[in-house]
Amino acid sequence: MQRIRVGIVGAASLTSSVLLRLLALHQQVEITFLTSETKDGQKVEDVHRELRGVISKRLVPYDPAEMVKRCDLVFLCKSHGEFWERTGKLIGRARRLKSRLKVIDLSADYRLQDPKLYSLWYGFEQKNTDLLKEATYGLTEIHTGRIKKAILIANPGCYPTCVVLGVAPLFKAKIVEGIPLIVDAYSGVSGAGLRPNERNMAMSTMENILPYCVASHPHTAEMEQELTLLSGEKVRVTFVPHVASFKYGMLANIYLKLKKKVKYEEIYRLYREFYKGKIFVRLLPKGEYPQVSDVVGTNLCEIGLVYDQRTETLIVMSVIDNLIKGGSGQAVQNMNVMFGLDEREGLPYLP
Amino acid sequence: MQRIRVGIVGAASLTSSVLLRLLALHQQVEITFLTSETKDGQKVEDVHRELRGVISKRLVPYDPAEMVKRCDLVFLCKSHGEFWERTGKLIGRARRLKSRLKVIDLSADYRLQDPKLYSLWYGFEQKNTDLLKEATYGLTEIHTGRIKKAILIANPGCYPTCVVLGVAPLFKAKIVEGIPLIVDAYSGVSGAGLRPNERNMAMSTMENILPYCVASHPHTAEMEQELTLLSGEKVRVTFVPHVASFKYGMLANIYLKLKKKVKYEEIYRLYREFYKGKIFVRLLPKGEYPQVSDVVGTNLCEIGLVYDQRTETLIVMSVIDNLIKGGSGQAVQNMNVMFGLDEREGLPYLP
Amino acid sequence: MQRIRVGIVGAASLTSSVLLRLLALHQQVEITFLTSETKDGQKVEDVHRELRGVISKRLVPYDPAEMVKRCDLVFLCKSHGEFWERTGKLIGRARRLKSRLKVIDLSADYRLQDPKLYSLWYGFEQKNTDLLKEATYGLTEIHTGRIKKAILIANPGCYPTCVVLGVAPLFKAKIVEGIPLIVDAYSGVSGAGLRPNERNMAMSTMENILPYCVASHPHTAEMEQELTLLSGEKVRVTFVPHVASFKYGMLANIYLKLKKKVKYEEIYRLYREFYKGKIFVRLLPKGEYPQVSDVVGTNLCEIGLVYDQRTETLIVMSVIDNLIKGGSGQAVQNMNVMFGLDEREGLPYLP
Amino acid sequence: MQRIRVGIVGAASLTSSVLLRLLALHQQVEITFLTSETKDGQKVEDVHRELRGVISKRLVPYDPAEMVKRCDLVFLCKSHGEFWERTGKLIGRARRLKSRLKVIDLSADYRLQDPKLYSLWYGFEQKNTDLLKEATYGLTEIHTGRIKKAILIANPGCYPTCVVLGVAPLFKAKIVEGIPLIVDAYSGVSGAGLRPNERNMAMSTMENILPYCVASHPHTAEMEQELTLLSGEKVRVTFVPHVASFKYGMLANIYLKLKKKVKYEEIYRLYREFYKGKIFVRLLPKGEYPQVSDVVGTNLCEIGLVYDQRTETLIVMSVIDNLIKGGSGQAVQNMNVMFGLDEREGLPYLP
Repeated sequence: MQRIRVGIVGAASLTSSVLLRLLALHQQVEITFLTSETKDGQKVEDVHRELRGVISKRLVPYDPAEMVKRCDLVFLCKSHGEFWERTGKLIGRARRLKSRLKVIDLSADYRLQDPKLYSLWYGFEQKNTDLLKEATYGLTEIHTGRIKKAILIANPGCYPTCVVLGVAPLFKAKIVEGIPLIVDAYSGVSGAGLRPNERNMAMSTMENILPYCVASHPHTAEMEQELTLLSGEKVRVTFVPHVASFKYGMLANIYLKLKKKVKYEEIYRLYREFYKGKIFVRLLPKGEYPQVSDVVGTNLCEIGLVYDQRTETLIVMSVIDNLIKGGSGQAVQNMNVMFGLDEREGLPYLP
Repeated sequence: MQRIRVGIVGAASLTSSVLLRLLALHQQVEITFLTSETKDGQKVEDVHRELRGVISKRLVPYDPAEMVKRCDLVFLCKSHGEFWERTGKLIGRARRLKSRLKVIDLSADYRLQDPKLYSLWYGFEQKNTDLLKEATYGLTEIHTGRIKKAILIANPGCYPTCVVLGVAPLFKAKIVEGIPLIVDAYSGVSGAGLRPNERNMAMSTMENILPYCVASHPHTAEMEQELTLLSGEKVRVTFVPHVASFKYGMLANIYLKLKKKVKYEEIYRLYREFYKGKIFVRLLPKGEYPQVSDVVGTNLCEIGLVYDQRTETLIVMSVIDNLIKGGSGQAVQNMNVMFGLDEREGLPYLP
Repeated sequence: MQRIRVGIVGAASLTSSVLLRLLALHQQVEITFLTSETKDGQKVEDVHRELRGVISKRLVPYDPAEMVKRCDLVFLCKSHGEFWERTGKLIGRARRLKSRLKVIDLSADYRLQDPKLYSLWYGFEQKNTDLLKEATYGLTEIHTGRIKKAILIANPGCYPTCVVLGVAPLFKAKIVEGIPLIVDAYSGVSGAGLRPNERNMAMSTMENILPYCVASHPHTAEMEQELTLLSGEKVRVTFVPHVASFKYGMLANIYLKLKKKVKYEEIYRLYREFYKGKIFVRLLPKGEYPQVSDVVGTNLCEIGLVYDQRTETLIVMSVIDNLIKGGSGQAVQNMNVMFGLDEREGLPYLP
Repeated sequence: MQRIRVGIVGAASLTSSVLLRLLALHQQVEITFLTSETKDGQKVEDVHRELRGVISKRLVPYDPAEMVKRCDLVFLCKSHGEFWERTGKLIGRARRLKSRLKVIDLSADYRLQDPKLYSLWYGFEQKNTDLLKEATYGLTEIHTGRIKKAILIANPGCYPTCVVLGVAPLFKAKIVEGIPLIVDAYSGVSGAGLRPNERNMAMSTMENILPYCVASHPHTAEMEQELTLLSGEKVRVTFVPHVASFKYGMLANIYLKLKKKVKYEEIYRLYREFYKGKIFVRLLPKGEYPQVSDVVGTNLCEIGLVYDQRTETLIVMSVIDNLIKGGSGQAVQNMNVMFGLDEREGLPYLP
């Protein structure tokens, strides 16, 4: 089989560094085009030290004509609001040329179906409503069928991946009480990117835990959209994210009321059936709690369930590696699905 | 004024190490009696390196007769269930001898008014119901009046201190909706003590965050007791503690529904009035979130408030140093109140 | 080609956990026999959580007869002094049965050629001098030729791997002045194993750096043996190891005087030639210093060189992952060499 | 006694934050003047969160006339090369007005007696040779007599404080062999200041150890100056600093050859006599190694000694808190000496 010719826009970013490491080990991929505006002309191995001796390609300016010609798939590693117009133009150009180019966008630009939500949560106006309708939310385990045929994948945010996978079986079964969901979650500092801020400086993050964007993080909208979609009922989420003093990984605790009293065993069975055959989601045995360190470096999501009989509250704990399953790993998983490969190809499952 | 003659039972423990550091800097205290069963005969400065050159007293076996004779105040630094009978006998002996000996118990042995809760949450039977009735729960800011006159203080647990201080004004004002409170909290590894276990080994705690005792931590009962007492209504708490990868400090996030829609400003005013003159509780300005690193090394509790309009949920964030305000610091604060000293004497307020 | 049938003695250890993760991803290996005295009867995936769903084999008691029958290669993951006699017997039995069984010993038991050094540095008497003579020190890059033909590999310690690779080109070229070498090195806490001690408890290792075994660490003898062997001159090493507050990785700083004034470029060329074709050793460009985080999770050794003109001192900085190149990774590398596979098979080179 | 009226130039810096915390607890100090160019007009408690409720003074622009009028002592918390000319003018103005104003400069501007060394190590030309001659190097334990009478104190760098205190008794006794000293040292990330760089970003410092300025750190010159002064012989130092993954503290390992074979006991006695009565320097008992966590938060320097008989090398290990004894704490200690107070006043000695 011919290898997938892959390009990356924004190849100097932290997201891209993880993506490149995964692609470098992927047997079915050929990296053909890497763009960067800030590091134009430099070798990728000089920008990302860890790729030294592995990928020596040079970074070049963005060039849609060349990308359409030389790529089967383009990963977009830009910040939200920066690229959505050019994404539309790139896909338009590909169509006009009858190219079969596909795009996986790791930014938030095409994640929310409702364009009004962009101004509300992200502060930019997303006017490409046609493409928005066509975009597929790339939570692999939930939307596998649509991902297979998609041209544009909106790769999910890290928190929504962790949370939606954690509670999807319950919302699908429509057994969650209609009160706001409470989500308390912690990300490693890698989630705060490379531009200096309070959440990625050593002095403010070491020996500390920092709540931020309390009840105002834009990932809230993604969670609400996906859980509403699964259950058919309007879902509201109170979401409090933190930066914790570790580099990689993410834990989300989700607190729910169920519509009727249920036995732990029934809930457990529900999850088992829902995730049957889903290789990257692991349900922990009763009494075990998931730990960030068990999934760091992998594309896994591990889920633990506790039912508090005293307060009739279900506690779901879900962990992922924020940069792998919560970012570049899921992007590669989506690529595998889009190109008919084994879902696991090139993806680590051992910490 | 004459200095308070102080004894400690269990002086080789981690709790005691922090207590000794505070007492060493306290101008009104004379340390007269330090007991240890395991380190009997050793100098305290050889057991706790950091006290080298500061306290050279020798550890001796427990001796109630001597303690009554040579102490005005005894701190008990034993684990729960280990000492409750001897505590009763010590106080009984003091009374018979008309001694004015007072006791501050840092274990959980006299915290819960209902003796049935001990077997339920701690697995030991607390039969000294007479003394139980007499014991005063030492949450200084809440029970100041009773602490002044108390003979036996049950010094609060770290999590209940952090949580009850965080929401006391709301429960006192009876404006919390009668649904279970959700508490998501993280402690530094120092909370896991010195005996090796998964929660204090470096390999399991570094670069990780560990949920433990999910919905089954005995501190739940303390929170429920104190909040029920404040509001006059039965309160239930869903409590999920974690060990986070830092040494000292604690953050609790508390999620509540209020009985009626309230403005942020009203809630804020409520807190301001409730904590007026309480030097160790600090309400943060609107928009600021508390951080563990701001209170580590101090006896402070800092509280941040966010009202999520979208979901009508109040989020209270409360931080303390788990070993100071959450343990030995509050014990010293209680001592100051019991002996008529300035509440701040010997207590750090700068991180 | 038929897969190598592999057994492990002491499969519940931390060393073994890393080894199993590597072997699980190795295409040419079949795991046939895992022994443990303490966890006998348990499944390996229950002992090492991270192997869940990957290896479900049960741990069994050590049985040399079965091992000879069912294994082509046995890895020994026991502590030093525990197994050296049984190692001799296992190899003896294999020979009598004309089995081609090979052994890689990850303990220190067969590393030092001089039996007197064992009692001096390790406190046990190594009497199997015949086997000692036959054992090959498994520093892959240095002894490749002998490793190919070896029956018993003494897999090197983590510090000696890091240090000897760091300075081998200089000693081989006989340009080092005959004064004691100064080695200042730091290991992550994973180096302190799983049994609780000051060097792996969170409270003593977080926010700290702990010197230990100052000028008395047994790895000193390994360094001296190998450097003496390379240069033909008696080498003495002053070695100060530390535990630093990270989990994985190791950095060694080595300070040397050279026999004559040399140019940086000459030294650099010496290294380049010495390590030509050695895929896992990377010489950094002038002006760059190696970092632990660049090699964690890989089998790489990265080396940086600085020549201090003012004091005529050469500073060599060498980093490895202490558990991979410094342990199980090098063991797999040696296996690859012994069985004629590509040296890189199954070994990670991206952090 | 009247309180010392204290001003700070550069009061928004990290150095100043530590200094202000110490001064806030100092009984004999009144803070009268705080300057900042960047945060002019803000309250100091808004710039340094931890001072909230403790110091509410406003930051104002630098004004030498006012400072002379309203201060007995000025602390300079500027970077090297930024302020040396104005320092000269400030002292000149004070003299002309017959003010007894004293200055403690926490930058490197007046530390090196030889003006040529500034251009060599710091890249700026220090032309104020008159004032340079008059400045007193403020290593309190070494220069106590001169500090008492000094007008201008050049407060030492963190590394030189740690290293010179560690080996001063040996150089004073002239028993060190004339070969370059080897110093391998690690600082917490707080040493890298607040401006974002590789040495204070969480992603590059967590789970890592970073060598930097290898054999080229300007503190080398301070060490050489002071050790040469003590011994009367030209001393050369090979100095390799690192940032380790903790926030506060510093460890230096120093490797020396002695002129003649000496017994450990003799060296030990030498140290004991040299530091007799020096309250902030602690010599550890034989067999104990100093640890960063034992001195963090204090003004202590702890020293451990190991003599390696095999290689005839003396290993000195010295630890301090890099921001306290290595900065603001020593500045306060110098203030105490200059104004005839108890040396310990306001200085923490418990971690």
